[in-house]
Amino acid sequence: MRAIVVTQLGGPEVLQAREMPMPVPGEHDLLIEVHACAINPIDFKIRRGAFAKNRELPFILGYDLSGVVRGVGEKVEGFYEGNEVYASPSLILNGANAEFVCVDARLVALKPKSLSHTDAAALPLVTLTAWEALLKRARIEMGQTILIHAGGGGVGHVAIQIAKLNLARVITTASSHDSLSLCHKCGADVVINYREENFVERVKAETGGRGCDVVFDTVGGETFDRSLDCVAVDGHVITCVGMPSDKIPQKLFRLNATLHFEFKGAPAVYGVRLESHGEILRAAALLVDQGHLKPYVSRVLELDELAEGHRLIETEHTTGKIVVNVK
Amino acid sequence: MRAIVVTQLGGPEVLQAREMPMPVPGEHDLLIEVHACAINPIDFKIRRGAFAKNRELPFILGYDLSGVVRGVGEKVEGFYEGNEVYASPSLILNGANAEFVCVDARLVALKPKSLSHTDAAALPLVTLTAWEALLKRARIEMGQTILIHAGGGGVGHVAIQIAKLNLARVITTASSHDSLSLCHKCGADVVINYREENFVERVKAETGGRGCDVVFDTVGGETFDRSLDCVAVDGHVITCVGMPSDKIPQKLFRLNATLHFEFKGAPAVYGVRLESHGEILRAAALLVDQGHLKPYVSRVLELDELAEGHRLIETEHTTGKIVVNVK
Repeated sequence: MRAIVVTQLGGPEVLQAREMPMPVPGEHDLLIEVHACAINPIDFKIRRGAFAKNRELPFILGYDLSGVVRGVGEKVEGFYEGNEVYASPSLILNGANAEFVCVDARLVALKPKSLSHTDAAALPLVTLTAWEALLKRARIEMGQTILIHAGGGGVGHVAIQIAKLNLARVITTASSHDSLSLCHKCGADVVINYREENFVERVKAETGGRGCDVVFDTVGGETFDRSLDCVAVDGHVITCVGMPSDKIPQKLFRLNATLHFEFKGAPAVYGVRLESHGEILRAAALLVDQGHLKPYVSRVLELDELAEGHRLIETEHTTGKIVVNVK
Repeated sequence: MRAIVVTQLGGPEVLQAREMPMPVPGEHDLLIEVHACAINPIDFKIRRGAFAKNRELPFILGYDLSGVVRGVGEKVEGFYEGNEVYASPSLILNGANAEFVCVDARLVALKPKSLSHTDAAALPLVTLTAWEALLKRARIEMGQTILIHAGGGGVGHVAIQIAKLNLARVITTASSHDSLSLCHKCGADVVINYREENFVERVKAETGGRGCDVVFDTVGGETFDRSLDCVAVDGHVITCVGMPSDKIPQKLFRLNATLHFEFKGAPAVYGVRLESHGEILRAAALLVDQGHLKPYVSRVLELDELAEGHRLIETEHTTGKIVVNVK
């Protein structure tokens, strides 16, 4: 089968087209014909060396897919050949930058009927991340105020929608014209252009000095540090990108606050609660088909252009998702 | 009234007996005649300067009390003169190292009937801390494995009991003969003498390499850092003492873990959900009177010996609680 593989750890240039052996599904797996995949920051992190321990080169990236079931492992129940599905594959196995991929069926759900494969492929990883972060970890409640950084980003634009569906008030940050506009379209109540305005001051003003019940940091670095001044007493901070290594949130202690490290990859990497991902994607598909949740795809590439997609995600402030059509 | 006051920030020698003006209850307060108070690490931290900003000298420490209501603010409902009560007063107001103290009634509950004032005074601060940490924050579930550090300490010995009442499996650490023995008495399933044994290795062995669902660190420093190797995927870590400033728990990100900063003082300091403390103490009193929860008092001092109590808590590994009889 045709695939784009990582030939060695390094920059986007290590991504090369190769003919690879057809994957064979294990007893819990589905063999999926990939129609579209999407690119996430985790792709270039792994390409540079994260999670690459004990991994044999060449390997295949791609942690979002929409496609069609072409093979069903012996112990799989509830899926059949021909099913149109979407999923976020395991970070430590071969991914979806290929014509075919095997994925544990517990991670998979039927794709939203109302979406093309191209649009459906934009959803799994960011939806799982935002859903787990806001609903399973911080357990947001209606009426709460949630600060979501980079609301025009992949995780951000889905997080805004999930928070609004749960009747929270959303404050978000962005800077490019497209991202600011996407934040508004997703329903954010307050959209801060962080290049023109100090977001800490604005958040304080918007919350009467109280701060936010939940801060969701999808950016990291200085944004994380400054966000600590935006947290209410008893508040929650979630990071899905890690935090600076030289600062410690003693402020969070005084605030009786909680810090969640949201790592979407955990179930597949450690083999725990894999079915929770299938469940979230099933629920998300329902929301999409009811018109409540919508992915935003800013750019569609062909598989041969994958390296260009990596370059964009790595160096630009992209808006929404970049999807790669495979079939 | 007679009180022991902090005459200036510093060592135990700054604690001196003084005649102080009788406190006057605000409209939400109870005026309580203190029968007994207890000493906690927060006492010496404040004596050295924590939370001392904008505070006028001399001031009175003491954040645990059992006593009798002698005055009731205009807006207080549900308390009457003569009620026997227990509470943990606000960290930023005068405390209970005195014959009388005013406490917001929402922080107060009727004391357990089955306990003397001396024993009841041992409970409020550590019970609020352990209850919030395990039940409100980490939301422990029956069948989970919980690691509780310093199980023979004030917070620790109550935390073990609360975890066992919720049908969790408790692994705990201690070193002195008295503390090891108290851990067993409180029902811990596994008691590790951390001076004789590497607790990380033992925890791994006891959990089949999986780690603990919840780690409650009441010690800090190196114990916190090493505890990161004892956490299961999706696990929770709680600290009620802060964490080292030069290390960052990136390990917690890979584990999809949650870090709770438990600061018991938050409600009274910030004026939020004060009634939650009255509610927890009411529930705890019920458990005590039903024979489910028991404080352990290792030493009883007189008010004039308060400085000696500070010295003990500051420099020794004390077991259970040190209580100070006032009346």
